[in-house]
Amino acid sequence: MKWEENVRKVVPYVAGEQPRKRNIIKLNTNECPYPPAPGVKKLAEEMEYASLRLYPDSGAKVLAEALAEYYHVSPEQVFVGVGSDDVLAMAFMTFFNSERPILFPDVTYSFYDVWADLYRIPYRTCPLDEDWHIRPEDYGQPNGGIIFPNPNAPTGLAESLESVEKILEANRDVVVIVDEAYVDFGGTSALPLLEKYDNLLIVQTFSKSRAMAGLRIGFCIGNEKLIGYLNDVKFSFNSYTMNLPAQVLGVEAVRDDRYFKEITGKIVATRERVKGELKRMGFSFPDSGANFIFATHEDIPASELFEALRKADIYVRHWNRPRISNFLRITIGTDEQMDELLAFLEKYIKTWKNGEKI
Amino acid sequence: MKWEENVRKVVPYVAGEQPRKRNIIKLNTNECPYPPAPGVKKLAEEMEYASLRLYPDSGAKVLAEALAEYYHVSPEQVFVGVGSDDVLAMAFMTFFNSERPILFPDVTYSFYDVWADLYRIPYRTCPLDEDWHIRPEDYGQPNGGIIFPNPNAPTGLAESLESVEKILEANRDVVVIVDEAYVDFGGTSALPLLEKYDNLLIVQTFSKSRAMAGLRIGFCIGNEKLIGYLNDVKFSFNSYTMNLPAQVLGVEAVRDDRYFKEITGKIVATRERVKGELKRMGFSFPDSGANFIFATHEDIPASELFEALRKADIYVRHWNRPRISNFLRITIGTDEQMDELLAFLEKYIKTWKNGEKI
Repeated sequence: MKWEENVRKVVPYVAGEQPRKRNIIKLNTNECPYPPAPGVKKLAEEMEYASLRLYPDSGAKVLAEALAEYYHVSPEQVFVGVGSDDVLAMAFMTFFNSERPILFPDVTYSFYDVWADLYRIPYRTCPLDEDWHIRPEDYGQPNGGIIFPNPNAPTGLAESLESVEKILEANRDVVVIVDEAYVDFGGTSALPLLEKYDNLLIVQTFSKSRAMAGLRIGFCIGNEKLIGYLNDVKFSFNSYTMNLPAQVLGVEAVRDDRYFKEITGKIVATRERVKGELKRMGFSFPDSGANFIFATHEDIPASELFEALRKADIYVRHWNRPRISNFLRITIGTDEQMDELLAFLEKYIKTWKNGEKI
Repeated sequence: MKWEENVRKVVPYVAGEQPRKRNIIKLNTNECPYPPAPGVKKLAEEMEYASLRLYPDSGAKVLAEALAEYYHVSPEQVFVGVGSDDVLAMAFMTFFNSERPILFPDVTYSFYDVWADLYRIPYRTCPLDEDWHIRPEDYGQPNGGIIFPNPNAPTGLAESLESVEKILEANRDVVVIVDEAYVDFGGTSALPLLEKYDNLLIVQTFSKSRAMAGLRIGFCIGNEKLIGYLNDVKFSFNSYTMNLPAQVLGVEAVRDDRYFKEITGKIVATRERVKGELKRMGFSFPDSGANFIFATHEDIPASELFEALRKADIYVRHWNRPRISNFLRITIGTDEQMDELLAFLEKYIKTWKNGEKI
């Protein structure tokens, strides 16, 4: 049809499966295995439903203020969005307007090239080294902007603050985005670098460590000028993006710091235990600082394990992509969920080694 | 700073004031004066808060299905977004990729030119006639797409299905978007034209007639192919845009049709009554089919009335724009709110006519 000629054609991002089945072990989209802070339920019940008839505050001020207080910045340094994907998409549109390619790692969050394509932003990928680390020196080449996650996904590997600063030092004239979706599980945030670098934007999310993927809350922190530009673009796109429940309940998640530390601590402890078990079974992996482990087995192909797990209603993530096709990304669930996963793998590997088909 | 060179600079949309004060009469952003359907509160209280830890369904299937059933289309013909602004922004990005200008009325929703600027889409405006009607013949010129609201905003004037079809007949090769944000207050939807025109996209919202501006729900209905392209772009932007509360509570708003008809009926009755009163006081206005009246007074400048109302904590909307600077857009509130507005105006006009300053 003729009207199709003017359609923006894109290859969309493919998210992890979200099976509707109950009673599955869902370790494929890096959600938190624990519920949101207990106060969230209480606050939701107290919410004044009549006020849903009104537009929510377009700047989500209550939430921006709670985040500013928590991270010791000013509210003008905080921008909130509908999940960190919304924040990142806005940042791509706002800051990556150069003719020069933006740079990001070859193995990374698979939405970056999708946004670049969507907004017609040229890009170049920089290969991670053999140990899956980012090589700061790669980011010295001419570019129109830089983005990388820290810890990186799907490797889970965290980079030191020194590495991050090396990249910033070499790039004072473009915006550098550090995507810290997984930072609360043991990574080091670039927040201390904010005072020194006015071109640094740090993006975080409520979907992992704050157990609120279902509410869609992401945010970023940066220089006030940077945030101002982001707001201009956001207000040219949709004035009211974050709904009332997200604003009200999000604040509660930030306030309950004890609960936040408790669940992230539990996930880290489970992760470390699972690392030991997986190693024992012949898996190897970058030393994850995130809420997932990116593992490969010494004998059994990842695609085979992926299918076997899936049949057993254990969902993990697998990509048919260069360099990573023999890896599984396994979200850290509860201890009970991980025990079921480990028991299944143990049995599967044993049978496999005996040359039997399962 | 050097990094600012690559920043996308835009003149953002300016939304109506959202004063935080209580006890004001808020007739400036076309919200519904009645609360959402009673079932919404109940459902919200029953919601399983633990499931907020999980990503919501990315296609908001429950809501798309409820809308499909209500409007007698297939779920594949429905796309939902974070308010109709989200849906419209996605539609601009998806469908208006031509070098030719898109067309919309000179007096219309003031976000259209903002989106065009944001996405670097050329555009041309077509003047409404002297009675504020769209002239279908204007839309016969070469173009890259068409968008108009019906009823139009801020005039409130509804066009006949015949006029809409005339525009579609002359434009089979581009996407034609009819923005029906206000259709539930007496306009005629273009839905019956969907079977005949595969390039027609109809956009609606829960923010006005369904009393849910605070939840951010918009949707559009069109040919499956059109919706498919829209989904591709949406999934290249943000997989999970609509949060769990919006999906769950939105369904309830669609299901309670009795309540929906009751509140829209009440608003229409109030509007008709207010029209009579305003006329009596020397106001004139296009014959609104929406939940607002776009009125000008025979003697007193709109800007003066706007300021006087504002001082009395009655908020209406006023624009300093060509053709409409002497008009006020007054949202239809409850009968009590409108009585306060009318009483204020009556008194103000009387004093004004006596040559006194207030």
